[in-house]
Amino acid sequence: MGDSLTESRTEPTLPAPGGQPGAEFRSPAGTPAERGSIGTQREGRTEPAEGHEAVTLLERARAEVDPVLRAALGTLPAPMRRVALYHFGWEQADGSPADGGSGKAIRPALVLAAASALGGPEVRAAAATAAAAVELVHNFTLLHDDVMDRDTTRRHRATAWTVFGDADAILAGDALQALALRLLAEDPLPVSRAAAARLADCVVELCAGQHADTALEHCVPGEVTLEEVLAMAEAKTGALLGSACAIGGLYAGASDEEVAALDAFGREAGLAFQLIDDIIGIWGDPRRTGKPVGADLAARKKSLPVVAALVSGTPEAAELAELYARPSEKEDLDHIALTVERAGGRDWAQIQAADRMARAMQQLSRAVPDPESAGGLLALAEFVTRRSS
Amino acid sequence: MGDSLTESRTEPTLPAPGGQPGAEFRSPAGTPAERGSIGTQREGRTEPAEGHEAVTLLERARAEVDPVLRAALGTLPAPMRRVALYHFGWEQADGSPADGGSGKAIRPALVLAAASALGGPEVRAAAATAAAAVELVHNFTLLHDDVMDRDTTRRHRATAWTVFGDADAILAGDALQALALRLLAEDPLPVSRAAAARLADCVVELCAGQHADTALEHCVPGEVTLEEVLAMAEAKTGALLGSACAIGGLYAGASDEEVAALDAFGREAGLAFQLIDDIIGIWGDPRRTGKPVGADLAARKKSLPVVAALVSGTPEAAELAELYARPSEKEDLDHIALTVERAGGRDWAQIQAADRMARAMQQLSRAVPDPESAGGLLALAEFVTRRSS
Repeated sequence: MGDSLTESRTEPTLPAPGGQPGAEFRSPAGTPAERGSIGTQREGRTEPAEGHEAVTLLERARAEVDPVLRAALGTLPAPMRRVALYHFGWEQADGSPADGGSGKAIRPALVLAAASALGGPEVRAAAATAAAAVELVHNFTLLHDDVMDRDTTRRHRATAWTVFGDADAILAGDALQALALRLLAEDPLPVSRAAAARLADCVVELCAGQHADTALEHCVPGEVTLEEVLAMAEAKTGALLGSACAIGGLYAGASDEEVAALDAFGREAGLAFQLIDDIIGIWGDPRRTGKPVGADLAARKKSLPVVAALVSGTPEAAELAELYARPSEKEDLDHIALTVERAGGRDWAQIQAADRMARAMQQLSRAVPDPESAGGLLALAEFVTRRSS
Repeated sequence: MGDSLTESRTEPTLPAPGGQPGAEFRSPAGTPAERGSIGTQREGRTEPAEGHEAVTLLERARAEVDPVLRAALGTLPAPMRRVALYHFGWEQADGSPADGGSGKAIRPALVLAAASALGGPEVRAAAATAAAAVELVHNFTLLHDDVMDRDTTRRHRATAWTVFGDADAILAGDALQALALRLLAEDPLPVSRAAAARLADCVVELCAGQHADTALEHCVPGEVTLEEVLAMAEAKTGALLGSACAIGGLYAGASDEEVAALDAFGREAGLAFQLIDDIIGIWGDPRRTGKPVGADLAARKKSLPVVAALVSGTPEAAELAELYARPSEKEDLDHIALTVERAGGRDWAQIQAADRMARAMQQLSRAVPDPESAGGLLALAEFVTRRSS
């Protein structure tokens, strides 16, 4: 879960409301996305307004969920609280205040947007506790993933384990999971029980995703299948986005079918995000400066475009396998990126991403047929996948 | 939590029912325990019957809870299931079946005994899910503690992290916590909500206890106070025993006061256990062979008798501080043990243990005034502290 959504590598600065909205997600010409609802739904909306809408939704979610999160963290014993407040970006390592950097609250925003889409403002307000619980689970997995992956930077700061040691980072993560499920256990609404069961199931899936990620990195490149990498990405990135949407639906009293469609919407959007994130990890993002292009290749990461290239059966696939077996040298990175591209890895990932977004939109229209009501979820899905490739 | 109750160092073989019951917990002459209810309650019972009762209760708890545990573990994705089944002693590392060794089920037995004491057999049956949840939480903390403490042996087998690596042991622990709270979220009884909140709170306290344990081991011996070590032991060992009893009470519809008394009963019994375990860690247990006497001293562990000796203000306290500052040498261990004893550490721990058991019995009589009904909880408390010193 080291590179889960918008947290590790991407962490883009939110565009100022009304400012440059950035390049929107674009489906490559002739891809399946054109057949999906994505174009249809988006035609009725102006793109700057959409970007603005997502930013507003994220800021609003942060404002609604932060008090719940802060109150929950405030109940922790001092040693765990210290690590948690540091991890959330609310304190420096020495305990002095810090101003945020706690992430963009995509998952709480999805909970609240789904609750709002199917239940209106009252349900949205009632779902704030669940939104905070989802964010706590997300952060618990980040704390643990950073320990396992030995990642040293998170949200532009040193990771918790590098500051407080492995033990305290593990314990703080354990405590955040407990806090998440305690919030739901103490939420008097009857639906909180189903939300807790769903969130607990999601934790298990996130663990399976992190396991698969670690295991895949230890495989010989030629042994990894696309299905395995897609399944890993779904468990690691898609599952919690799906659960966030599903839990919002539960609070709105959605039917099983609607909840399933919301879950599928979040999962597909999460996969689209991961595909685009992987593309950026190889070819960079011209809209952002400071992003180390080729970092994933240098780390010999078996990202989705790379695995697509490796299994392509092209002559470049064999070349890529050879290149990946060699020790990393900086001058090779451009050549490796070109080889992945020639083997079709880039096109495949772009088409897949478009396809996943199309599927996400189909699921969304199934869960929330009224386009007006679906607007918030749509804007958030487009926000997380809004990056040039 | 590395040496939590009956799991790390002690793990005595259950005496055969009706067989040699072993030395019962004995309060040193003239200690506060004589003023407690412990003697009174125990006088009416024959000691062999008591030992037999605890063994029967533990075996019965195992039989009732294991199917719930196995079903829950069966829902895990394969990689996490594999680690969990190994950790529970139900599979070998290669996935072939193993026959148990999953611990003595003290905590589930306490849940069920408390439910039974205040609610009878029907409540006992209804509390099986909660008992399994408590056992899952216990095992989640063991998995993580072993990673943090680098402990290599647990229940006479290699610890999970030594077999599967740190990452999978951490992930399996994370999944077990989720599973515990999912079991309660899916338990249709309304009380399961309060049980979940209490169990989640307990997880946070267990984390704080493990943090304190690690932190205390890094302190200079002279800086550690008895209050700190007692608080650590209560959080690390007492909290989950207390929660187990309290949760059993919740299922029986106990009043807040009764639940609080059950919690206090478990906590005090847990502290009594820890004190006696620490005594055994220094002076050994003549009833058991193969127990490495002095292991805690060799590791320079700041166990309760050692800290009591260090803060005693006696000339031996200064000598002990010096001895503890030196590198460990095998020939010194007898001398260190004698110094702790001369500084009063052994007597203090024995008196404290007796006092804690007396307090436990007082709390028990408050929660369950009928001695007949309280018999199961009493037998379990005496079982866990039943060891010669």
